[in-house]
Amino acid sequence: MNKIGILATYLTQEHRDKIQAAADLAGREVHYFKDAADCEANLGDCEILYGYIPAGFIKKAASLKWLATAAAGVDALLKDEIYPHEGIILTNSSGSYGVTISEHMIMTTLMLMRRMPAYQEEMRRQEWGSLGNIRSIYGSTIVVVGTGDIGTNFACRAKAMGAARVIGVRRTLKEADPAFDEVYTTDRLKEAVVGADVVALALPATASTIGVFSKEIIDSLPSRALVLNVGRGNAVDQDALIDALNEERIAGAALDVMVPEPLPKGHPLFSAKNCILTPHCSGTMTLQHTNDANVDTFCRNLVRYARGEEMENVIDRGIGY
Amino acid sequence: MNKIGILATYLTQEHRDKIQAAADLAGREVHYFKDAADCEANLGDCEILYGYIPAGFIKKAASLKWLATAAAGVDALLKDEIYPHEGIILTNSSGSYGVTISEHMIMTTLMLMRRMPAYQEEMRRQEWGSLGNIRSIYGSTIVVVGTGDIGTNFACRAKAMGAARVIGVRRTLKEADPAFDEVYTTDRLKEAVVGADVVALALPATASTIGVFSKEIIDSLPSRALVLNVGRGNAVDQDALIDALNEERIAGAALDVMVPEPLPKGHPLFSAKNCILTPHCSGTMTLQHTNDANVDTFCRNLVRYARGEEMENVIDRGIGY
Repeated sequence: MNKIGILATYLTQEHRDKIQAAADLAGREVHYFKDAADCEANLGDCEILYGYIPAGFIKKAASLKWLATAAAGVDALLKDEIYPHEGIILTNSSGSYGVTISEHMIMTTLMLMRRMPAYQEEMRRQEWGSLGNIRSIYGSTIVVVGTGDIGTNFACRAKAMGAARVIGVRRTLKEADPAFDEVYTTDRLKEAVVGADVVALALPATASTIGVFSKEIIDSLPSRALVLNVGRGNAVDQDALIDALNEERIAGAALDVMVPEPLPKGHPLFSAKNCILTPHCSGTMTLQHTNDANVDTFCRNLVRYARGEEMENVIDRGIGY
Repeated sequence: MNKIGILATYLTQEHRDKIQAAADLAGREVHYFKDAADCEANLGDCEILYGYIPAGFIKKAASLKWLATAAAGVDALLKDEIYPHEGIILTNSSGSYGVTISEHMIMTTLMLMRRMPAYQEEMRRQEWGSLGNIRSIYGSTIVVVGTGDIGTNFACRAKAMGAARVIGVRRTLKEADPAFDEVYTTDRLKEAVVGADVVALALPATASTIGVFSKEIIDSLPSRALVLNVGRGNAVDQDALIDALNEERIAGAALDVMVPEPLPKGHPLFSAKNCILTPHCSGTMTLQHTNDANVDTFCRNLVRYARGEEMENVIDRGIGY
């Protein structure tokens, strides 16, 4: 029977039962790799691979027809060279991360708006007192660059919390979620950020997103702007962002992604002003909901794949998502 | 002309213009006190007082008919002894604080759920890596004790972020906001918290709320419970809460109010496990929206007062809100 190879550390017995049920429907056999080394040694006869499969292993998957990555970002999986042959379907797990990453975005936006790191520092010193004026999501103008699952989940939450205006920025104009009051195309990004309280980047890393948050855009931000990045670090001119933070030309930033990762000790981002850093943890497999949604997406797709039906989250490797 | 005395540091020219317009309609003269000493010396002929008037001054306000406090909590203004005579109307500024305090509550809930203080500590050490499983508001059961402006604003935001169940707990059953899936009376608090991921206290300090979050209730919380308090510190058996935190019988707490305030250096709360403290800053006059809403409420009430119409936010000093 054709084989599904799975490399994933987050699966519960319930997840395995679901996968088994879908595999039975699909007429495939499930094989769990013990670890990365086991995966590398034994993926040669797998028709399907699911989980976090290192890009460097895929070349050896001679029987591969479908690679289902548990990640949302597929930038490491775009190049032809990593594949053993043409025609391999690549799907990602878009839809699993919107909840967790948007909660991270709401949290860090409020931490920046409410001077929370400074209050935490005050409490560490065991002192007491107001640190001055704060801001709110309520009544704010929020620009979301990238209107996929993550950006849309954030937009909905910001709108529900009373944001006055939520502007989406996307590659091409098409019907967006009603959470967006307006939608701009990426070439009008500079125009979109003019009145922003918050600019949230939730972009995949593709040829067209690298450096899109350029020095020119950063230098045109209003001084009250807060910048979030949960997509990929290379979307941002990081040096220009650090300068804008340290010269207080913008009000703050919260970066879950950066260049490089991990950030080496002593990197200037660690000491940038009003900058909240997190170690690319906003959307990892640490939340039950994410893991459940991820497995559900794979199981639905497995049945569709077996039946020759249209699959979800199929990546156009030319565009990059 | 009868006088309105105002002691407030947060008023902009726009606010003063609004107050002047309302005073003109009401046929009253506006007098701004320079500072607390000026207020104490010169409030004797004021018919109306607005702002943050120290409770100890009120006895000297021989002409007082209406005390409009800019605060939401009125526990310092309940006793007959502080007043110069009977029949003085007391109003608070309920309605001004729901936005800012509920944003604080969403922020701290997410910080606790997402291990944010530990991630911040990791970043301070300039290290990198996942700190393990996190939780989400999405899918959670949230118990809100006190279903006034603040509790209701929090409930709406939690619901909009996908909370599975939002339970309100209030003194008496009456129609609550549709954000609450269920409402319990306070005498059933122990029952209400059984399945809680979050228990949020947004209670005024009244005779019946002191100690309501007792050792018995705290000891009955599920181990995953996170406790928020934005009302008054004396609603909680603080020693029992500290024990529960340090023995990891509950998952965490975020306290903006405590006993005493300011918290003295070396107080055990400063070192309690998984406890986020803030210096009673969640709802002060540091947010434009709060200040605007506060002034608007006073102006509306001023016109109603002058016309002999029913006023907003009139406190029943017997009940305490």
